[in-house]
Amino acid sequence: MTPATKAAPAASIDSSVIARLRVIAGAENVLTEREDLVPYGFDGTAALKHGAACVVLPRTVEVVAEIVRFTRSAGIPVVTRGSGTGLSGGSVPVDGGIVLCLVHLNRILEIDPANLTLLAESGTITKAIDDASHPHGLFYPPDPGSMKISTIGGNVANNSGGLRGLKYGVTRDYVMGLEVVLPDGEIAWLGSKCVKDVAGYSMKDLFVGSEGTLGIITKVLLKLVPRPKARRTLLSSFDSMESAARSVSKIIERHIIPCTLEFLDSKTCQSVEDYAKVGLPTEAAAVVLMETDGHPAVVEEEAAAMAEIAKENGAISVEQAADEAHATRLATARRSAFSALARIRPTTILEDVTVPRSRLAEIVAFVEEVAARHRLQIATFGHFGDGNVHPTILTDETDHEEMERVEAALSEIFDKTVELGGTITGEHGVGLAKKPYLPRQFDEASYALMRKVKRALDPGGLLNPGKIFDLDHG
Amino acid sequence: MTPATKAAPAASIDSSVIARLRVIAGAENVLTEREDLVPYGFDGTAALKHGAACVVLPRTVEVVAEIVRFTRSAGIPVVTRGSGTGLSGGSVPVDGGIVLCLVHLNRILEIDPANLTLLAESGTITKAIDDASHPHGLFYPPDPGSMKISTIGGNVANNSGGLRGLKYGVTRDYVMGLEVVLPDGEIAWLGSKCVKDVAGYSMKDLFVGSEGTLGIITKVLLKLVPRPKARRTLLSSFDSMESAARSVSKIIERHIIPCTLEFLDSKTCQSVEDYAKVGLPTEAAAVVLMETDGHPAVVEEEAAAMAEIAKENGAISVEQAADEAHATRLATARRSAFSALARIRPTTILEDVTVPRSRLAEIVAFVEEVAARHRLQIATFGHFGDGNVHPTILTDETDHEEMERVEAALSEIFDKTVELGGTITGEHGVGLAKKPYLPRQFDEASYALMRKVKRALDPGGLLNPGKIFDLDHG
Repeated sequence: MTPATKAAPAASIDSSVIARLRVIAGAENVLTEREDLVPYGFDGTAALKHGAACVVLPRTVEVVAEIVRFTRSAGIPVVTRGSGTGLSGGSVPVDGGIVLCLVHLNRILEIDPANLTLLAESGTITKAIDDASHPHGLFYPPDPGSMKISTIGGNVANNSGGLRGLKYGVTRDYVMGLEVVLPDGEIAWLGSKCVKDVAGYSMKDLFVGSEGTLGIITKVLLKLVPRPKARRTLLSSFDSMESAARSVSKIIERHIIPCTLEFLDSKTCQSVEDYAKVGLPTEAAAVVLMETDGHPAVVEEEAAAMAEIAKENGAISVEQAADEAHATRLATARRSAFSALARIRPTTILEDVTVPRSRLAEIVAFVEEVAARHRLQIATFGHFGDGNVHPTILTDETDHEEMERVEAALSEIFDKTVELGGTITGEHGVGLAKKPYLPRQFDEASYALMRKVKRALDPGGLLNPGKIFDLDHG
Repeated sequence: MTPATKAAPAASIDSSVIARLRVIAGAENVLTEREDLVPYGFDGTAALKHGAACVVLPRTVEVVAEIVRFTRSAGIPVVTRGSGTGLSGGSVPVDGGIVLCLVHLNRILEIDPANLTLLAESGTITKAIDDASHPHGLFYPPDPGSMKISTIGGNVANNSGGLRGLKYGVTRDYVMGLEVVLPDGEIAWLGSKCVKDVAGYSMKDLFVGSEGTLGIITKVLLKLVPRPKARRTLLSSFDSMESAARSVSKIIERHIIPCTLEFLDSKTCQSVEDYAKVGLPTEAAAVVLMETDGHPAVVEEEAAAMAEIAKENGAISVEQAADEAHATRLATARRSAFSALARIRPTTILEDVTVPRSRLAEIVAFVEEVAARHRLQIATFGHFGDGNVHPTILTDETDHEEMERVEAALSEIFDKTVELGGTITGEHGVGLAKKPYLPRQFDEASYALMRKVKRALDPGGLLNPGKIFDLDHG
């Protein structure tokens, strides 16, 4: 969190600029009324708000390109957003800038079952992409928590993860091509439908995860995979995070790669059970939701092996979901962890540190120790198979003394994460929230490298300025 | 092919430069004798040769970094190479430059079974990586044709493919981290052991496939996967490429993703059978080698389904490999296609066009038509599942009239490939061989984008200059 951005001032923009934007995008697609602008002043990140002065909702890539050419000539910053579900403040408006909201670019343009690809505009809702794949027996695996409302463009810009990372990878692994509007207003197509393509640098891979700082993604060509024919879901509870961690290690040592290995600590578990009432074992120190998918014979075998391994390694209970509906209820309960925790205190800060899988129990123990020492409420849940941990700080942003302890705790958690070979953000992105901590993770040479790329591609620094890093600090 | 680089002149370099390189790298690691330099003047690409003036074989990353700092200050170009098995002239020396050969950086530094990773120096032989994974029940899937002699650093620099692309992806999909020496001689670490990591731009993805033009890869952190427990290999023959293509489409429509779907046309098949004598059906128009791997029950089922689909779609014969040894003989025969064809005429030009899988039969038919029209011998084989086709032109580089027809044929094949939504190189890279054709595939904006990145990262243009594109042409 950067305290400087906590305020939500009313921003302003020149009326001639607004007039020009109305000509380019159509007056009905330009918002300037204060009450219309409110929802565009924040994303899903606690305590990061900044009033927007003008929001444009383009309906074609040509309009996006024309807006970029105009704002570039006028020196106006542009912040792109989709549904605003980001968790690092990456789409929070900037002073003197406009917000480009791409939710109207929401058409699925092609499903190509022969090549296992789908082409969509970037404002398409992520879940709509998987839904459209379903009738073809196909599957779009990345499933960020926000998938029902987030846009695929936002997912690509943040290289979103989800619950299936260990087996299926993340958004990057499914991006075959991108249409982007570059900082100079040119439209470029990057990538192809080819499974193999090594012609030149992989510029699409540079844009995946660049958080709107290098260009504006307008179309996405995605890889689909055959939908798994069966799945089995197990709910196991443990008397310690260490025994849960040991079970996960043993599962992977046995060369089982489950699609899901989600864990909740006892605080999260109690909170989710209060909220969702699906029968989670609230007395356990750790609950692990395990899911395997694929061929029916294989999932049967793997589910049995995982249950056996969990029991051998200290599980208090292992329960197999009775049917598909039960499995869905359990997965939904896990997905509600953030919402459940958010009811407890006024401010909920969802962190996103990630370590090599073998170090997960260590970082969770460290978070508990830090919470106790700084007298903070921190509940932790996350993706065990990915080493991706979401320590969730339940606090109150109006209590300055408590917020100082929050800052101190976060700083220690980030340092420990880096010490364990981890990353300060596994799937939420850097945006504003992680920007101050990014240099801790990078050696000077690789930090400088990223900034060189930004300067080369966006020399005016007008695309999502101040996100990820500041260019003027050296 | 760029005719300007066909000559192999004796290059020269200043003796004070050589003296300094001897101090930095040790005299025994600096080659300057004409007979020692010969093997470094070419790679696996026909007709691309250029004499090296000085070859340095560093043994540590610190020496690599010091060499880069020195050559940068002296304005000397550096071409990096591993085993020199490249197929696009990417490691052919340049005038006035030195060759940095990394084969002595060949240690496997760590295998981490808990995190399914392997860390190796970039000069490690690719096959040694898979071999080292084997005792842990693990598997490094990318298997370029050169895997027994190529280095992993060369694979990463070229984002090498192989026979298993459809199911397992390519080298990029296995690179989790890289140590690189940047053009200014700084050493940077990119990436991490985390399955999810979205901290900043994915610079490692920019370096994968950048062909030594942005930095020098010195260490590679790779993802491993559990070794499949079973495999089944089928050899099927067809009376036309169309019926082979239809079979492949139907297999994928049935949502079977085999690890291998290799095809050979009749010319290739006859040539391989002459050479390897493994019992290939030489009378067929197309032979497809199909392989499925994974869980024993699944491979059994998938092999039976693939055999049935092939028969339903016009296969003349479908034969299952009797045992592991037979399967290996068939795979080895397929791998020998290039060597077998190379015996026929003095010069063998191996092409690498790739189209969306559904267009494969079209491009193969087009290549046949072009061969007939230009009176050329072209045999074609490749990776059906990836749409990756290797038209192999059997010719004689000393016959200028024939070479003109070769150039004309290649140009038409590249145009057709681009028209079909394909790429001029699926797995061999651009290097020198494809450089003249690259602009045909890219829109102006994306071509300019790559060049901006090169200028930003290597402003002196000293790392592998003239490969992929020329910076001075606009």
